[in-house]
Amino acid sequence: MCVGATPHDHHHHETPEGLSLTRRSFLKAGAAGAAGMSLAVAAPAVPALAHARAGRGHRVVDLTHRLVKTFPAFLGPQAITDQVLFTIENDGFYTKQWTFDEHIGTHIDTPGHFSPGGALVDALDPQTLLAPIAVVDIKRKAMDDPNAMVEPRDLVRYERRHGRIPRGALVCMNSGWAAKVGDGDAFRGGTGFPDLNFPGFSSDATDWLNAKRDIVGIGVDTMSIDPGNSADFAVHVSFLGSGRYGIENLANLDHIPAKGARAFVGPVPWEDGSGSPCRVLATVAGRR
Amino acid sequence: MCVGATPHDHHHHETPEGLSLTRRSFLKAGAAGAAGMSLAVAAPAVPALAHARAGRGHRVVDLTHRLVKTFPAFLGPQAITDQVLFTIENDGFYTKQWTFDEHIGTHIDTPGHFSPGGALVDALDPQTLLAPIAVVDIKRKAMDDPNAMVEPRDLVRYERRHGRIPRGALVCMNSGWAAKVGDGDAFRGGTGFPDLNFPGFSSDATDWLNAKRDIVGIGVDTMSIDPGNSADFAVHVSFLGSGRYGIENLANLDHIPAKGARAFVGPVPWEDGSGSPCRVLATVAGRR
Repeated sequence: MCVGATPHDHHHHETPEGLSLTRRSFLKAGAAGAAGMSLAVAAPAVPALAHARAGRGHRVVDLTHRLVKTFPAFLGPQAITDQVLFTIENDGFYTKQWTFDEHIGTHIDTPGHFSPGGALVDALDPQTLLAPIAVVDIKRKAMDDPNAMVEPRDLVRYERRHGRIPRGALVCMNSGWAAKVGDGDAFRGGTGFPDLNFPGFSSDATDWLNAKRDIVGIGVDTMSIDPGNSADFAVHVSFLGSGRYGIENLANLDHIPAKGARAFVGPVPWEDGSGSPCRVLATVAGRR
Repeated sequence: MCVGATPHDHHHHETPEGLSLTRRSFLKAGAAGAAGMSLAVAAPAVPALAHARAGRGHRVVDLTHRLVKTFPAFLGPQAITDQVLFTIENDGFYTKQWTFDEHIGTHIDTPGHFSPGGALVDALDPQTLLAPIAVVDIKRKAMDDPNAMVEPRDLVRYERRHGRIPRGALVCMNSGWAAKVGDGDAFRGGTGFPDLNFPGFSSDATDWLNAKRDIVGIGVDTMSIDPGNSADFAVHVSFLGSGRYGIENLANLDHIPAKGARAFVGPVPWEDGSGSPCRVLATVAGRR
Protein backbone atom coordinates (compact mmCIF):
# COMPACT_ATOMS: atom_id res chain seq x y z
CA MET A 1 0.00 0.00 0.00
CA CYS A 2 2.85 2.39 0.59
CA VAL A 3 5.04 3.70 -2.19
CA GLY A 4 8.40 2.05 -2.11
CA ALA A 5 7.43 -0.72 0.31
CA THR A 6 8.34 -4.29 -0.53
CA PRO A 7 6.13 -7.27 0.32
CA HIS A 8 8.51 -8.58 2.98
CA ASP A 9 8.97 -5.22 4.62
CA HIS A 10 7.26 -5.61 7.97
CA HIS A 11 8.97 -2.80 9.72
CA HIS A 12 8.62 -2.91 13.46
CA HIS A 13 9.20 -0.19 16.04
CA GLU A 14 9.53 -0.44 19.79
CA THR A 15 8.74 2.39 22.11
CA PRO A 16 10.61 2.54 25.42
CA GLU A 17 7.56 1.11 27.18
CA GLY A 18 7.73 -1.97 25.00
CA LEU A 19 4.66 -0.94 23.07
CA SER A 20 4.76 -1.90 19.46
CA LEU A 21 2.89 -0.78 16.40
CA THR A 22 3.50 -2.69 13.23
CA ARG A 23 3.13 -1.27 9.78
CA ARG A 24 0.85 -4.20 9.10
CA SER A 25 -1.48 -3.26 11.97
CA PHE A 26 -1.55 0.38 10.97
CA LEU A 27 -2.29 -0.44 7.34
CA LYS A 28 -4.82 -3.09 8.34
CA ALA A 29 -6.86 -0.37 9.99
CA GLY A 30 -6.35 1.73 6.87
CA ALA A 31 -7.51 -1.13 4.67
CA ALA A 32 -10.88 -1.07 6.40
CA GLY A 33 -11.50 2.30 4.77
CA ALA A 34 -13.35 2.74 1.51
CA ALA A 35 -11.19 1.76 -1.48
CA GLY A 36 -8.26 0.82 0.77
CA MET A 37 -6.89 4.33 0.42
CA SER A 38 -3.12 4.54 0.64
CA LEU A 39 -1.87 7.16 3.04
CA ALA A 40 1.41 7.68 1.25
CA VAL A 41 -0.04 7.73 -2.24
CA ALA A 42 -2.83 10.08 -1.25
CA ALA A 43 -0.47 12.71 0.14
CA PRO A 44 -0.63 15.74 -2.13
CA ALA A 45 2.26 17.97 -2.99
CA VAL A 46 2.80 20.30 -0.07
CA PRO A 47 2.67 24.01 -0.92
CA ALA A 48 4.43 26.68 1.03
CA LEU A 49 2.88 27.31 4.43
CA ALA A 50 -0.36 29.17 4.26
CA HIS A 51 0.29 32.87 4.28
CA ALA A 52 -1.05 34.38 7.42
CA ARG A 53 -1.38 37.56 9.35
CA ALA A 54 -0.51 38.32 12.94
CA GLY A 55 -3.52 40.55 13.37
CA ARG A 56 -4.19 43.97 12.03
CA GLY A 57 -1.10 46.10 12.13
CA HIS A 58 1.08 43.60 13.97
CA ARG A 59 3.86 41.26 13.01
CA VAL A 60 5.35 38.37 14.96
CA VAL A 61 9.04 38.13 15.85
CA ASP A 62 10.20 34.72 17.06
CA LEU A 63 12.34 35.06 20.18
CA THR A 64 13.00 31.30 20.24
CA HIS A 65 16.09 29.46 19.07
CA ARG A 66 15.60 26.36 16.94
CA LEU A 67 16.12 23.49 19.38
CA VAL A 68 18.83 21.52 17.63
CA LYS A 69 20.12 18.38 19.31
CA THR A 70 23.52 20.03 19.70
CA PHE A 71 22.08 23.07 21.49
CA PRO A 72 24.71 24.33 23.98
CA ALA A 73 24.05 22.81 27.41
CA PHE A 74 24.97 24.29 30.79
CA LEU A 75 26.94 21.22 31.83
CA GLY A 76 28.79 20.87 28.53
CA PRO A 77 27.95 17.59 26.77
CA GLN A 78 24.93 17.29 24.51
CA ALA A 79 21.76 17.11 26.58
CA ILE A 80 19.21 16.04 23.95
CA THR A 81 18.55 12.78 22.19
CA ASP A 82 15.83 11.81 19.76
CA GLN A 83 14.65 8.63 18.13
CA VAL A 84 12.51 8.19 15.03
CA LEU A 85 9.53 6.03 16.04
CA PHE A 86 7.58 5.88 12.77
CA THR A 87 8.29 6.89 9.18
CA ILE A 88 5.98 7.84 6.35
CA GLU A 89 7.64 5.29 4.11
CA ASN A 90 7.07 2.39 6.48
CA ASP A 91 4.13 3.45 8.61
CA GLY A 92 2.25 6.14 6.69
CA PHE A 93 3.23 8.84 9.19
CA TYR A 94 6.33 10.29 10.80
CA THR A 95 7.00 10.93 14.46
CA LYS A 96 9.94 11.11 16.85
CA GLN A 97 10.53 10.63 20.54
CA TRP A 98 12.63 13.10 22.55
CA THR A 99 14.61 12.93 25.77
CA PHE A 100 16.01 16.06 27.39
CA ASP A 101 16.55 18.05 30.53
CA GLU A 102 13.92 20.70 31.26
CA HIS A 103 16.52 23.47 30.99
CA ILE A 104 17.63 23.28 27.37
CA GLY A 105 17.13 25.64 24.45
CA THR A 106 14.97 28.69 24.88
CA HIS A 107 13.28 27.74 28.14
CA ILE A 108 11.63 28.95 31.31
CA ASP A 109 12.88 28.70 34.90
CA THR A 110 10.10 28.55 37.48
CA PRO A 111 10.01 29.80 41.08
CA GLY A 112 10.33 26.16 42.19
CA HIS A 113 13.59 25.55 40.29
CA PHE A 114 15.68 26.80 43.24
CA SER A 115 13.11 27.46 45.97
CA PRO A 116 11.23 24.75 47.89
CA GLY A 117 7.50 25.34 47.55
CA GLY A 118 7.86 27.69 44.62
CA ALA A 119 5.38 27.42 41.73
CA LEU A 120 6.29 24.78 39.16
CA VAL A 121 5.72 24.97 35.42
CA ASP A 122 2.19 23.57 35.62
CA ALA A 123 1.19 26.17 38.20
CA LEU A 124 2.24 29.40 36.51
CA ASP A 125 -0.59 31.91 36.21
CA PRO A 126 -1.46 32.07 32.48
CA GLN A 127 -2.10 35.80 32.91
CA THR A 128 1.66 36.25 33.46
CA LEU A 129 2.48 34.61 30.10
CA LEU A 130 1.43 37.63 28.05
CA ALA A 131 3.60 40.61 28.95
CA PRO A 132 4.99 43.88 27.63
CA ILE A 133 8.72 43.55 26.90
CA ALA A 134 11.44 45.96 28.01
CA VAL A 135 14.78 45.23 26.28
CA VAL A 136 17.82 46.44 28.22
CA ASP A 137 20.87 46.58 25.96
CA ILE A 138 24.25 45.88 27.60
CA LYS A 139 26.08 44.82 24.44
CA ARG A 140 28.75 47.46 24.81
CA LYS A 141 29.94 46.44 28.27
CA ALA A 142 29.50 42.73 27.44
CA MET A 143 32.14 43.17 24.73
CA ASP A 144 34.62 44.23 27.43
CA ASP A 145 33.54 41.75 30.12
CA PRO A 146 31.94 38.40 29.27
CA ASN A 147 30.47 38.26 32.78
CA ALA A 148 28.94 41.73 32.54
CA MET A 149 25.72 42.20 34.46
CA VAL A 150 22.57 44.24 34.15
CA GLU A 151 22.90 46.64 37.08
CA PRO A 152 20.39 49.07 38.59
CA ARG A 153 22.07 51.92 36.69
CA ASP A 154 21.27 50.14 33.41
CA LEU A 155 17.61 50.05 34.40
CA VAL A 156 17.66 53.73 35.37
CA ARG A 157 19.27 54.59 32.05
CA TYR A 158 16.68 52.48 30.23
CA GLU A 159 13.83 54.34 31.90
CA ARG A 160 15.38 57.74 31.24
CA ARG A 161 15.34 56.94 27.55
CA HIS A 162 12.26 54.73 27.12
CA GLY A 163 10.01 55.56 30.05
CA ARG A 164 8.96 53.62 33.09
CA ILE A 165 9.10 49.82 32.91
CA PRO A 166 5.40 48.91 32.74
CA ARG A 167 3.48 46.83 35.24
CA GLY A 168 3.52 43.16 34.32
CA ALA A 169 6.63 43.53 32.16
CA LEU A 170 9.11 40.91 31.02
CA VAL A 171 12.49 42.66 31.35
CA CYS A 172 15.02 41.22 28.90
CA MET A 173 18.78 41.56 28.75
CA ASN A 174 20.26 41.90 25.26
CA SER A 175 23.97 41.18 25.61
CA GLY A 176 24.59 40.20 21.99
CA TRP A 177 25.22 36.60 23.07
CA ALA A 178 22.53 35.03 20.85
CA ALA A 179 24.86 35.40 17.86
CA LYS A 180 27.23 32.85 19.47
CA VAL A 181 24.65 30.06 19.85
CA GLY A 182 26.04 27.99 16.97
CA ASP A 183 29.33 27.46 18.88
CA GLY A 184 28.79 25.80 22.26
CA ASP A 185 32.09 26.81 23.84
CA ALA A 186 31.71 30.41 22.66
CA PHE A 187 28.09 30.59 23.87
CA ARG A 188 29.02 29.07 27.25
CA GLY A 189 32.26 31.02 27.43
CA GLY A 190 33.85 27.73 28.45
CA THR A 191 33.45 23.98 28.37
CA GLY A 192 30.58 23.73 30.84
CA PHE A 193 29.80 24.31 34.51
CA PRO A 194 31.74 25.56 36.40
CA ASP A 195 33.78 26.82 33.42
CA LEU A 196 31.26 29.39 32.17
CA ASN A 197 31.55 33.05 31.22
CA PHE A 198 28.59 35.02 29.85
CA PRO A 199 26.46 38.01 30.88
CA GLY A 200 23.45 37.94 33.21
CA PHE A 201 21.48 39.97 35.73
CA SER A 202 22.91 41.17 39.02
CA SER A 203 20.75 40.51 42.07
CA ASP A 204 21.01 44.25 42.77
CA ALA A 205 19.12 44.79 39.52
CA THR A 206 16.44 42.18 40.21
CA ASP A 207 16.11 43.45 43.80
CA TRP A 208 15.62 46.95 42.34
CA LEU A 209 12.94 45.65 39.97
CA ASN A 210 11.17 43.78 42.75
CA ALA A 211 11.26 46.78 45.08
CA LYS A 212 10.38 49.54 42.63
CA ARG A 213 8.50 47.99 39.72
CA ASP A 214 5.96 45.19 39.32
CA ILE A 215 7.17 42.73 36.72
CA VAL A 216 6.33 39.11 35.89
CA GLY A 217 9.76 37.92 34.85
CA ILE A 218 13.17 38.51 33.35
CA GLY A 219 14.73 37.12 30.19
CA VAL A 220 18.28 36.77 28.93
CA ASP A 221 19.94 35.91 25.63
CA THR A 222 22.47 33.75 27.52
CA MET A 223 22.03 30.37 29.19
CA SER A 224 21.50 31.69 32.73
CA ILE A 225 19.83 34.64 34.40
CA ASP A 226 22.94 34.81 36.62
CA PRO A 227 26.22 35.60 34.86
CA GLY A 228 28.39 32.63 33.89
CA ASN A 229 30.92 33.16 36.67
CA SER A 230 28.26 33.37 39.38
CA ALA A 231 29.28 31.43 42.46
CA ASP A 232 26.01 31.70 44.34
CA PHE A 233 23.23 31.71 41.71
CA ALA A 234 21.93 34.76 43.55
CA VAL A 235 19.31 35.71 40.95
CA HIS A 236 18.03 32.15 40.63
CA VAL A 237 17.58 32.13 44.38
CA SER A 238 16.19 35.58 45.10
CA PHE A 239 14.35 36.56 41.92
CA LEU A 240 12.80 33.18 41.09
CA GLY A 241 12.19 32.82 44.81
CA SER A 242 10.09 36.00 44.70
CA GLY A 243 7.49 34.05 42.69
CA ARG A 244 8.54 35.28 39.24
CA TYR A 245 9.96 33.45 36.25
CA GLY A 246 13.11 33.64 34.15
CA ILE A 247 13.58 32.89 30.45
CA GLU A 248 16.99 31.80 29.19
CA ASN A 249 18.50 31.53 25.69
CA LEU A 250 16.26 34.12 24.05
CA ALA A 251 16.85 34.89 20.36
CA ASN A 252 16.33 37.90 18.11
CA LEU A 253 16.16 40.63 20.77
CA ASP A 254 17.83 42.89 18.19
CA HIS A 255 14.68 42.56 16.09
CA ILE A 256 12.21 44.06 18.54
CA PRO A 257 12.13 47.60 19.89
CA ALA A 258 13.39 48.49 23.37
CA LYS A 259 9.80 49.24 24.33
CA GLY A 260 6.38 48.45 22.91
CA ALA A 261 6.67 44.79 21.92
CA ARG A 262 4.54 42.23 23.72
CA ALA A 263 5.65 38.69 24.59
CA PHE A 264 3.73 35.44 24.44
CA VAL A 265 5.53 32.96 26.66
CA GLY A 266 4.61 29.33 26.00
CA PRO A 267 6.07 26.81 28.45
CA VAL A 268 4.80 23.21 28.32
CA PRO A 269 2.79 22.76 31.56
CA TRP A 270 4.04 19.30 32.38
CA GLU A 271 3.61 17.64 35.72
CA ASP A 272 5.70 19.18 38.50
CA GLY A 273 8.31 20.53 36.09
CA SER A 274 11.02 22.94 37.25
CA GLY A 275 10.93 24.55 33.82
CA SER A 276 10.50 23.60 30.17
CA PRO A 277 11.53 24.45 26.65
CA CYS A 278 9.34 27.37 25.79
CA ARG A 279 8.18 29.07 22.62
CA VAL A 280 8.50 32.83 23.02
CA LEU A 281 6.95 35.05 20.38
CA ALA A 282 6.80 38.83 20.33
CA THR A 283 4.21 40.97 18.61
CA VAL A 284 5.39 44.30 17.30
CA ALA A 285 3.24 47.12 16.01
CA GLY A 286 3.53 47.79 12.30
CA ARG A 287 2.81 45.92 9.10
CA ARG A 288 4.95 42.95 8.20
CA MET B 1 25.90 24.09 53.09
CA CYS B 2 22.44 22.73 52.30
CA VAL B 3 19.79 22.36 54.94
CA GLY B 4 19.34 18.73 55.87
CA ALA B 5 22.54 17.54 54.24
CA THR B 6 24.90 15.31 56.18
CA PRO B 7 28.70 15.43 55.81
CA HIS B 8 28.89 12.05 54.08
CA ASP B 9 26.08 12.84 51.68
CA HIS B 10 27.81 13.04 48.35
CA HIS B 11 24.80 12.56 46.20
CA HIS B 12 25.60 11.66 42.65
CA HIS B 13 23.44 11.82 39.55
CA GLU B 14 23.99 10.32 36.15
CA THR B 15 22.47 11.74 33.03
CA PRO B 16 21.75 9.35 30.16
CA GLU B 17 24.91 10.53 28.42
CA GLY B 18 27.00 9.45 31.38
CA LEU B 19 27.62 13.02 32.43
CA SER B 20 27.81 13.49 36.15
CA LEU B 21 27.46 16.47 38.42
CA THR B 22 28.25 15.91 42.05
CA ARG B 23 26.76 17.88 44.87
CA ARG B 24 30.31 18.52 45.98
CA SER B 25 31.23 20.10 42.66
CA PHE B 26 28.13 22.23 42.62
CA LEU B 27 28.67 23.43 46.17
CA LYS B 28 32.38 23.89 45.62
CA ALA B 29 31.50 26.48 43.01
CA GLY B 30 29.03 27.96 45.48
CA ALA B 31 31.69 28.11 48.20
CA ALA B 32 33.74 30.43 46.05
CA GLY B 33 31.05 33.06 46.50
CA ALA B 34 31.21 35.81 49.09
CA ALA B 35 30.40 34.46 52.56
CA GLY B 36 29.86 30.95 51.20
CA MET B 37 26.20 31.70 50.66
CA SER B 38 23.93 28.69 51.00
CA LEU B 39 21.50 28.26 48.19
CA ALA B 40 18.96 26.39 50.24
CA VAL B 41 19.21 28.62 53.29
CA ALA B 42 19.02 31.77 51.21
CA ALA B 43 15.79 30.76 49.49
CA PRO B 44 13.09 33.12 50.74
CA ALA B 45 9.51 32.15 51.34
CA VAL B 46 7.79 32.10 47.98
CA PRO B 47 4.76 34.35 47.69
CA ALA B 48 1.89 33.75 45.33
CA LEU B 49 2.84 34.36 41.71
CA ALA B 50 3.18 37.99 40.83
CA HIS B 51 -0.17 39.40 39.85
CA ALA B 52 -0.12 40.39 36.25
CA ARG B 53 -2.24 41.69 33.45
CA ALA B 54 -2.75 40.35 29.97
CA GLY B 55 -2.77 43.79 28.47
CA ARG B 56 -5.35 46.50 28.65
CA GLY B 57 -8.83 45.08 28.45
CA HIS B 58 -7.76 41.51 27.75
CA ARG B 59 -7.62 38.32 29.75
CA VAL B 60 -5.85 35.07 28.98
CA VAL B 61 -7.64 31.71 28.78
CA ASP B 62 -5.38 28.67 28.80
CA LEU B 63 -6.42 26.21 26.07
CA THR B 64 -3.75 23.73 27.20
CA HIS B 65 -4.22 20.61 29.30
CA ARG B 66 -1.76 19.99 32.12
CA LEU B 67 0.64 17.41 30.70
CA VAL B 68 0.40 14.70 33.34
CA LYS B 69 2.45 11.55 32.84
CA THR B 70 -0.77 9.56 32.52
CA PHE B 71 -2.12 11.78 29.74
CA PRO B 72 -4.27 9.60 27.42
CA ALA B 73 -2.14 8.36 24.52
CA PHE B 74 -3.34 7.42 21.05
CA LEU B 75 -1.84 3.95 21.23
CA GLY B 76 -3.10 3.21 24.73
CA PRO B 77 -0.23 2.69 27.19
CA GLN B 78 1.39 5.62 28.97
CA ALA B 79 3.65 7.51 26.56
CA ILE B 80 5.57 9.76 28.99
CA THR B 81 8.31 9.09 31.49
CA ASP B 82 10.28 11.48 33.66
CA GLN B 83 13.28 11.27 35.93
CA VAL B 84 14.40 13.64 38.67
CA LEU B 85 17.99 14.64 37.87
CA PHE B 86 18.72 17.07 40.70
CA THR B 87 16.96 18.04 43.93
CA ILE B 88 17.08 21.21 45.98
CA GLU B 89 17.87 19.18 49.07
CA ASN B 90 20.90 17.49 47.59
CA ASP B 91 22.03 19.81 44.82
CA GLY B 92 20.64 23.25 45.57
CA PHE B 93 18.27 23.14 42.60
CA TYR B 94 15.57 20.93 41.13
CA THR B 95 15.24 19.66 37.59
CA LYS B 96 13.78 16.71 35.72
CA GLN B 97 14.39 14.92 32.44
CA TRP B 98 11.50 13.93 30.15
CA THR B 99 10.99 11.32 27.45
CA PHE B 100 7.92 11.36 25.24
CA ASP B 101 6.48 11.05 21.77
CA GLU B 102 5.96 14.34 19.94
CA HIS B 103 2.19 13.75 19.79
CA ILE B 104 1.15 13.78 23.44
CA GLY B 105 -0.91 16.23 25.47
CA THR B 106 -2.06 19.45 23.85
CA HIS B 107 0.16 19.38 20.78
CA ILE B 108 0.63 20.44 17.18
CA ASP B 109 0.65 18.27 14.04
CA THR B 110 2.75 19.69 11.22
CA PRO B 111 2.35 19.38 7.44
CA GLY B 112 5.27 16.92 7.50
CA HIS B 113 3.60 14.53 9.96
CA PHE B 114 1.86 12.64 7.12
CA SER B 115 3.22 14.26 3.95
CA PRO B 116 6.75 13.83 2.63
CA GLY B 117 8.37 17.24 2.23
CA GLY B 118 5.81 19.01 4.39
CA ALA B 119 7.01 21.69 6.81
CA LEU B 120 8.23 20.33 10.15
CA VAL B 121 7.84 21.96 13.54
CA ASP B 122 11.03 24.02 13.22
CA ALA B 123 9.89 25.44 9.86
CA LEU B 124 6.42 26.74 10.71
CA ASP B 125 5.98 30.40 9.83
CA PRO B 126 5.77 32.26 13.19
CA GLN B 127 3.20 34.59 11.61
CA THR B 128 0.77 31.63 11.56
CA LEU B 129 1.11 31.06 15.31
CA LEU B 130 -1.03 34.04 16.25
CA ALA B 131 -4.52 33.61 14.85
CA PRO B 132 -8.17 34.58 15.37
CA ILE B 133 -10.15 31.62 16.72
CA ALA B 134 -13.48 30.35 15.40
CA VAL B 135 -15.06 27.78 17.75
CA VAL B 136 -17.49 25.41 16.03
CA ASP B 137 -19.68 23.68 18.61
CA ILE B 138 -20.83 20.12 17.76
CA LYS B 139 -21.49 19.00 21.33
CA ARG B 140 -25.10 18.10 20.64
CA LYS B 141 -24.42 15.64 17.85
CA ALA B 142 -21.32 14.31 19.62
CA MET B 143 -23.60 13.19 22.46
CA ASP B 144 -25.46 10.95 19.99
CA ASP B 145 -22.44 9.77 17.98
CA PRO B 146 -18.94 9.56 19.50
CA ASN B 147 -17.46 9.66 16.00
CA ALA B 148 -19.42 12.76 15.00
CA MET B 149 -17.66 15.06 12.55
CA VAL B 150 -17.53 18.74 11.78
CA GLU B 151 -19.23 18.86 8.37
CA PRO B 152 -19.51 21.73 5.87
CA ARG B 153 -23.05 22.41 7.12
CA ASP B 154 -21.66 23.05 10.62
CA LEU B 155 -19.34 25.67 9.13
CA VAL B 156 -22.19 27.26 7.18
CA ARG B 157 -24.32 27.35 10.33
CA TYR B 158 -21.40 28.87 12.25
CA GLU B 159 -21.01 31.64 9.69
CA ARG B 160 -24.74 32.37 9.59
CA ARG B 161 -24.63 33.03 13.30
CA HIS B 162 -21.15 34.49 13.86
CA GLY B 163 -20.08 35.91 10.52
CA ARG B 164 -17.45 34.88 8.04
CA ILE B 165 -14.50 32.84 9.30
CA PRO B 166 -11.67 35.39 9.16
CA ARG B 167 -8.51 35.13 7.09
CA GLY B 168 -5.73 33.46 9.01
CA ALA B 169 -8.14 31.77 11.43
CA LEU B 170 -7.63 28.75 13.64
CA VAL B 171 -10.91 26.84 13.34
CA CYS B 172 -11.56 24.76 16.46
CA MET B 173 -14.03 21.94 17.08
CA ASN B 174 -15.67 21.94 20.52
CA SER B 175 -17.17 18.47 20.96
CA GLY B 176 -17.28 18.50 24.75
CA TRP B 177 -14.59 15.82 24.85
CA ALA B 178 -12.12 17.80 26.97
CA ALA B 179 -14.20 16.97 30.05
CA LYS B 180 -13.27 13.28 29.64
CA VAL B 181 -9.48 13.80 29.68
CA GLY B 182 -9.06 12.43 33.19
CA ASP B 183 -10.21 8.96 32.06
CA GLY B 184 -8.05 7.58 29.25
CA ASP B 185 -10.52 4.97 27.97
CA ALA B 186 -13.38 7.49 27.99
CA PHE B 187 -11.27 10.14 26.25
CA ARG B 188 -10.05 7.66 23.64
CA GLY B 189 -13.46 5.97 23.40
CA GLY B 190 -11.54 2.72 23.59
CA THR B 191 -8.33 1.11 24.71
CA GLY B 192 -6.10 2.60 22.01
CA PHE B 193 -5.53 2.47 18.26
CA PRO B 194 -7.40 1.03 16.39
CA ASP B 195 -10.03 0.87 19.17
CA LEU B 196 -10.85 4.60 19.23
CA ASN B 197 -14.12 6.55 19.12
CA PHE B 198 -14.22 10.33 19.39
CA PRO B 199 -15.25 13.32 17.25
CA GLY B 200 -13.10 15.03 14.61
CA PHE B 201 -13.22 16.95 11.36
CA SER B 202 -14.52 15.48 8.11
CA SER B 203 -12.30 16.00 5.08
CA ASP B 204 -15.36 17.52 3.39
CA ALA B 205 -15.20 20.26 6.03
CA THR B 206 -11.46 20.86 5.70
CA ASP B 207 -11.76 20.76 1.89
CA TRP B 208 -14.51 23.38 2.19
CA LEU B 209 -12.28 25.54 4.41
CA ASN B 210 -9.33 25.21 2.03
CA ALA B 211 -11.44 26.03 -1.02
CA LYS B 212 -13.54 28.86 0.38
CA ARG B 213 -11.65 30.40 3.29
CA ASP B 214 -8.01 31.13 4.08
CA ILE B 215 -7.10 29.62 7.44
CA VAL B 216 -3.84 28.65 9.14
CA GLY B 217 -5.00 25.56 10.99
CA ILE B 218 -7.66 23.56 12.75
CA GLY B 219 -7.90 22.50 16.37
CA VAL B 220 -9.85 19.80 18.20
CA ASP B 221 -10.64 18.97 21.82
CA THR B 222 -10.04 15.28 21.04
CA MET B 223 -6.81 13.39 20.36
CA SER B 224 -7.02 13.50 16.57
CA ILE B 225 -8.19 15.89 13.86
CA ASP B 226 -9.76 12.84 12.20
CA PRO B 227 -12.57 11.12 14.13
CA GLY B 228 -11.56 8.10 16.24
CA ASN B 229 -13.02 5.55 13.83
CA SER B 230 -11.25 7.01 10.80
CA ALA B 231 -9.79 4.29 8.62
CA ASP B 232 -7.86 6.52 6.25
CA PHE B 233 -6.68 9.55 8.31
CA ALA B 234 -8.11 11.63 5.50
CA VAL B 235 -7.76 14.98 7.30
CA HIS B 236 -4.21 14.26 8.42
CA VAL B 237 -3.36 13.53 4.80
CA SER B 238 -5.23 16.23 2.92
CA PHE B 239 -5.48 19.13 5.38
CA LEU B 240 -1.98 18.87 6.89
CA GLY B 241 -0.77 18.11 3.38
CA SER B 242 -2.15 21.49 2.26
CA GLY B 243 0.59 23.16 4.33
CA ARG B 244 -1.51 23.92 7.40
CA TYR B 245 -1.31 22.68 10.97
CA GLY B 246 -3.58 20.86 13.40
CA ILE B 247 -3.81 21.15 17.17
CA GLU B 248 -5.07 18.20 19.19
CA ASN B 249 -6.25 17.84 22.80
CA LEU B 250 -7.31 21.46 23.27
CA ALA B 251 -8.82 22.45 26.63
CA ASN B 252 -11.29 25.08 27.81
CA LEU B 253 -12.98 25.86 24.50
CA ASP B 254 -16.16 26.43 26.54
CA HIS B 255 -14.41 29.40 28.14
CA ILE B 256 -13.82 31.47 25.02
CA PRO B 257 -16.44 32.99 22.72
CA ALA B 258 -17.33 31.42 19.36
CA LYS B 259 -15.74 34.43 17.68
CA GLY B 260 -13.38 37.18 18.74
CA ALA B 261 -10.73 35.32 20.75
CA ARG B 262 -7.17 35.18 19.46
CA ALA B 263 -4.84 32.21 19.82
CA PHE B 264 -1.16 32.13 20.61
CA VAL B 265 0.17 28.75 19.51
CA GLY B 266 3.52 27.81 21.05
CA PRO B 267 5.10 24.62 19.66
CA VAL B 268 8.70 23.83 20.61
CA PRO B 269 10.70 24.29 17.38
CA TRP B 270 12.90 21.26 17.78
CA GLU B 271 14.99 19.80 15.02
CA ASP B 272 12.97 18.10 12.26
CA GLY B 273 10.04 17.39 14.57
CA SER B 274 6.73 16.11 13.18
CA GLY B 275 4.96 17.99 15.97
CA SER B 276 5.40 18.90 19.62
CA PRO B 277 3.59 19.51 22.87
CA CYS B 278 2.37 23.03 22.50
CA ARG B 279 1.16 25.75 24.85
CA VAL B 280 -1.97 27.31 23.43
CA LEU B 281 -3.27 30.49 25.05
CA ALA B 282 -6.24 32.58 24.00
CA THR B 283 -6.72 36.27 24.61
CA VAL B 284 -10.29 37.42 25.07
CA ALA B 285 -11.53 40.98 25.15
CA GLY B 286 -12.79 42.15 28.53
CA ARG B 287 -11.38 42.67 31.98
CA ARG B 288 -10.37 39.66 34.04
